[in-house]
Amino acid sequence: MQKVINPPKNEWEKLSKRPLKDFNSLSKIVNEIFDDIKRNKDEAVLRYTRLFDKAEITTLQLSEEEYNRASDEIPEELKNAIKLASRNIEKFHLSQKEDSKICETSKGVYCWRESRPIEKVGIYIPGGSAPLFSTIMMLGIPAKIAGCKEIIMCTPPDKNGEINPIMVYTAKTIGIKSIFKVGGIQAIGALALGTEAIPKVDKIFGPGNQFVTAAKLIAQNYGIAIDMPAGPSEVLVIADSSSNPEFIAADLLSQAEHGEDSQVILLSDDERIIDEVIESIKNQLSDLPRKDTAIAALKESKAIMLNSIEECFEFSNIYAPEHLIIASDNAKSYLSIIENAGSVFIGNYSCESAGDYASGTNHTLPTNGFAKNYSGVSLDSFVKKITFQEVTKEGIMNIGPSIEFMAEAEQLAAHKKAVSVRLKKINEK
Amino acid sequence: MQKVINPPKNEWEKLSKRPLKDFNSLSKIVNEIFDDIKRNKDEAVLRYTRLFDKAEITTLQLSEEEYNRASDEIPEELKNAIKLASRNIEKFHLSQKEDSKICETSKGVYCWRESRPIEKVGIYIPGGSAPLFSTIMMLGIPAKIAGCKEIIMCTPPDKNGEINPIMVYTAKTIGIKSIFKVGGIQAIGALALGTEAIPKVDKIFGPGNQFVTAAKLIAQNYGIAIDMPAGPSEVLVIADSSSNPEFIAADLLSQAEHGEDSQVILLSDDERIIDEVIESIKNQLSDLPRKDTAIAALKESKAIMLNSIEECFEFSNIYAPEHLIIASDNAKSYLSIIENAGSVFIGNYSCESAGDYASGTNHTLPTNGFAKNYSGVSLDSFVKKITFQEVTKEGIMNIGPSIEFMAEAEQLAAHKKAVSVRLKKINEK
Repeated sequence: MQKVINPPKNEWEKLSKRPLKDFNSLSKIVNEIFDDIKRNKDEAVLRYTRLFDKAEITTLQLSEEEYNRASDEIPEELKNAIKLASRNIEKFHLSQKEDSKICETSKGVYCWRESRPIEKVGIYIPGGSAPLFSTIMMLGIPAKIAGCKEIIMCTPPDKNGEINPIMVYTAKTIGIKSIFKVGGIQAIGALALGTEAIPKVDKIFGPGNQFVTAAKLIAQNYGIAIDMPAGPSEVLVIADSSSNPEFIAADLLSQAEHGEDSQVILLSDDERIIDEVIESIKNQLSDLPRKDTAIAALKESKAIMLNSIEECFEFSNIYAPEHLIIASDNAKSYLSIIENAGSVFIGNYSCESAGDYASGTNHTLPTNGFAKNYSGVSLDSFVKKITFQEVTKEGIMNIGPSIEFMAEAEQLAAHKKAVSVRLKKINEK
Repeated sequence: MQKVINPPKNEWEKLSKRPLKDFNSLSKIVNEIFDDIKRNKDEAVLRYTRLFDKAEITTLQLSEEEYNRASDEIPEELKNAIKLASRNIEKFHLSQKEDSKICETSKGVYCWRESRPIEKVGIYIPGGSAPLFSTIMMLGIPAKIAGCKEIIMCTPPDKNGEINPIMVYTAKTIGIKSIFKVGGIQAIGALALGTEAIPKVDKIFGPGNQFVTAAKLIAQNYGIAIDMPAGPSEVLVIADSSSNPEFIAADLLSQAEHGEDSQVILLSDDERIIDEVIESIKNQLSDLPRKDTAIAALKESKAIMLNSIEECFEFSNIYAPEHLIIASDNAKSYLSIIENAGSVFIGNYSCESAGDYASGTNHTLPTNGFAKNYSGVSLDSFVKKITFQEVTKEGIMNIGPSIEFMAEAEQLAAHKKAVSVRLKKINEK
């Protein structure tokens, strides 16, 4: 970890910069694969799966037999853990349901909003060495609560053409039935364009590497919505003298083990805390299985000493972290000054892992500074809010003349007339 | 208007297709202009303004003198109309404020969301023959309610280098102070990249032609959020025998006068209504100033007779209209079967013009079928919802062991350890 002492404010913006990813350079390969899928559908998808995932499969959809068998292989303790986490995620996302409030804006003019589910959603779950079943909960549970009719899950198969049974089990407990063995650009292409086997969806969710992100960005050109552009995961910890350096070291390492490009930042007004955290990281690193990844990530990460905790929050608002941990007994007193963050962890016992798995909040969050302009995934992400208005006769009499003046000023005579014909009819009676 | 009688269901999808816009073909010119703005900033923006808007200006920002003078030139009646509309828009968008509800997911685990304003927002208002001040209200008022710190408005100047005083007046009443005389790709580029005069923003809002839309799509590659991809405006009217053909004709014409590419659809289970609407359109067209535009739009538009009102809603859900008018005395009984629409107008006196200007709902809505996966602009569009979690000692004791099992199953040992060090500390005491 690089230790930085009291950097001048005009350097904060620069210290907050993440390495730039150039997605434009990937657009050529994405467009090529998309065009291929448009023409050759399943055949193209299977071909790319052989090429990129080295999996010799002939059927993209997970078979019923594979689907049914999954539960047998999961230890009971893990099943119970998934049950607890699912229940908490369900509770919190259910609490995000909004009642529609009717607002009478002028006498006789009633306006309100109602939520409707997005009909078809695609959920992308990355592959790799570990089965990321937690993301299935984070995307599948709110999709179910929202009432999405079709939930299509794509995840790359391993070299044997299989999907880890924990993934299948988790999908089953949520009620996701359509699971496809496909990853990378070809998965996003299939969801955006539709093939014989894989339905075209209205919105695509889920994390992924730079190829997946580039593909999601380009899917938008085909009228598909996406949850958000994804980047490497990040944590920023603000620690004061009441924090516990061992806890903080563990939190920073839990971010660093994600990938070599993970972003890890520690801010404090107390140099002792910074030194003790750095020391504790060294101790904890020794027996970490993903040690090499963590060391690489930590090389680029920074521990910054600032003049006050207030300055730490000022810096954090510029950085706009995906995860913000406030490691302080006074954490709650700072919440109102937080402007930009994906998810906030309050106090010394709120570790990021809690939000990653089981507190109930969503772990699909804006990275790379996008916390300035994007929210994390929530129930809202799976619905549209439709506005409704009922303008009664009394209502149009109240607001009609104003509409006529404004339509005329905008030189839209037919807009005016739509009001005039109604007012005339009312006055005739 | 093309009259279509009982088309078979397998043709509905095709009947719902809008003409395809290929934004990829515009990306070259957009990227060129963006690169130029990146290098030459204001100089480039002024150069494109001379080239495209034929306006010889040397300063991009509206002067204080122009800003102050605007109110003098507006008729009192129009000022009052703007006041009434603003009040209704304010009321409805204020009603969208959400109280944060704290949800205790497990004993000692508290989760909630809080809204924070997006700090810097850009509001694009198209130019052209008419001053579209209503869009300034629709974007500026929720931005103010949300608490956005900087609201940057861009709109192209006329050939004399001026902005219509109604536009300036409307911006003033809302409290928008930063107004720039710039339109088209160069406006979006300046907002996305920042120049000497024009600040870089976090999110860009507002309608525009295909160049503006292409520029907004590409702005996303620079980390800028956008409200939604915009396309030509649309209305779909569902009419039964209780509807008024003269009203419907006026509503269809108010959409058709927007532009030659405006989408206008009438659905009914009653052929008499269809014929009377077509007849009434002919009558009303004669004295319409934007007659030629409306005629061109109507050439591509369709009046479709279906077997029942339920079928009309089924078709409408496939079409996913920006504006849906239910011209029926029974309108309210159908609301629950609406799945996809931007804004819904209920009953014979709820004309689209009402929502365009003054009912209080937002008129920035998803077009081109995007009502399937996007909501219209609302207060939500100007905020991020940050999740917060407070995991107490009791809380981590309750959910900690489950997190440990799941982190282990995902092969993330440091995630597990972040919990373990805390549980150990609690047990030591």
